Amino acid sequence: MTQRSLTVPGEVRVIPLVGLPELEAGDDLGVHLAAACDRAGGLEEGDVVVVAQKAVSKVEGRIVALEEIEPSARSIELAGDEGDARQMEVILRETAEVVRSRPPLVISETPHGFVCASAGVDASNAKGPGTVILLPLDPDASAARLRGRLAELTGISPGVVVSDSFGRAWRQGTTDVALGVAGIVALRDLRGTTDSRGYELRSTMIAVADEIAGAAELVMGKANGVPAAIVRGVDASGDGRAADIVMPRERDLFR
Amino acid sequence: MTQRSLTVPGEVRVIPLVGLPELEAGDDLGVHLAAACDRAGGLEEGDVVVVAQKAVSKVEGRIVALEEIEPSARSIELAGDEGDARQMEVILRETAEVVRSRPPLVISETPHGFVCASAGVDASNAKGPGTVILLPLDPDASAARLRGRLAELTGISPGVVVSDSFGRAWRQGTTDVALGVAGIVALRDLRGTTDSRGYELRSTMIAVADEIAGAAELVMGKANGVPAAIVRGVDASGDGRAADIVMPRERDLFR
Repeated sequence: MTQRSLTVPGEVRVIPLVGLPELEAGDDLGVHLAAACDRAGGLEEGDVVVVAQKAVSKVEGRIVALEEIEPSARSIELAGDEGDARQMEVILRETAEVVRSRPPLVISETPHGFVCASAGVDASNAKGPGTVILLPLDPDASAARLRGRLAELTGISPGVVVSDSFGRAWRQGTTDVALGVAGIVALRDLRGTTDSRGYELRSTMIAVADEIAGAAELVMGKANGVPAAIVRGVDASGDGRAADIVMPRERDLFR
Repeated sequence: MTQRSLTVPGEVRVIPLVGLPELEAGDDLGVHLAAACDRAGGLEEGDVVVVAQKAVSKVEGRIVALEEIEPSARSIELAGDEGDARQMEVILRETAEVVRSRPPLVISETPHGFVCASAGVDASNAKGPGTVILLPLDPDASAARLRGRLAELTGISPGVVVSDSFGRAWRQGTTDVALGVAGIVALRDLRGTTDSRGYELRSTMIAVADEIAGAAELVMGKANGVPAAIVRGVDASGDGRAADIVMPRERDLFR
């Protein structure tokens, strides 16, 4: 799987993890990820393993069959003529607060505090037609469990990021962001440090876990069945949580 | 500058470009970038060169001395007790519309359509105290000029992304995004394609230029004086513009 090449000091490598099987509820995702890491030449100290939220949600059984769902009047209204009212019902059950709606589109705040389209509920790549996948109940805990399992299996405790594709206000297109984090910082706080000319950097917090998730998406893609990647060479070890990235409501200019 | 290592098929590499001098208005940034690429082992076909907005703004002379600025009553009000009214005056001159304000913080829509803190005006790492750096007037044109210059100097026409650190609604911390794009797509449109199980992907547009900018930030950093990077291995060639990423006002749920 490897080829001879030259790398440059300080470079970051984003390595696709391939060959994972279709996942089912109860599967040991750590075993599959460890095997994929092995095929990619093995984990190294400081690596971050990024895994798509859908893979995590599948093994955690976060899947709903729409035929079992009875839509409410509000779901029917928010789905409009183009949406699926049963899927909207699932979205509303996963929603703490509707931030914006324009049928059939809903932007939700989830119980985790994430603001995203459809409360992260997605039909594509689910377990067949008529099923939808929900976000993990506690993605930071999912990341921590995977980190522990990978340590048991490989002897290396990598950082772990559970990622998903989120839209953004004012910009088109999605970028992958961190829903769950373990073993790395989520935010890199540069306040008080100085730049190359000695000036103090003010109010500079970098969402490094989100940038790691976005970098991983460059090799994962949506269409090509690569649900995970190793990001190597980022010095981000720490004890962060994706929950750290959620903007506290009292500081939020947009809620 | 290079060392022997093994790379994995399909991996993406993010290579820091180091050794650029302090830049001045009128400097030939392409010459400095080409030399830095050469020190990193040279450009390859398909590479994307990411360069920090501040480097571009400096060579384009987009620098203002605050001592020449007379603040308006509105600038004094929006700056509040903690802000610099002269800097706020510059921010307002670079602002098409104030989206939110809480003195001394302003979220602006710029004439380019970007929504960001302080209209992208920044004091840190400027040409000494009392000066601020503005965004390029036309960052897509800046990217296209750099692409052309790099082609002249190296024989390779890389993709070019001019990047900056933007905050996001609802999430803490910044991620780097694309302000200017040349030679690659800005958005990857997956609508109509199918996933690994044959289901059609719906409404999936990936802001690949933003993910490339974020990946580059992982090696550039703010504090360590690395103003550029090569992102290698992303198949994104095309004729995009960062302007493509700006959400059209009529589709925007948040303006």
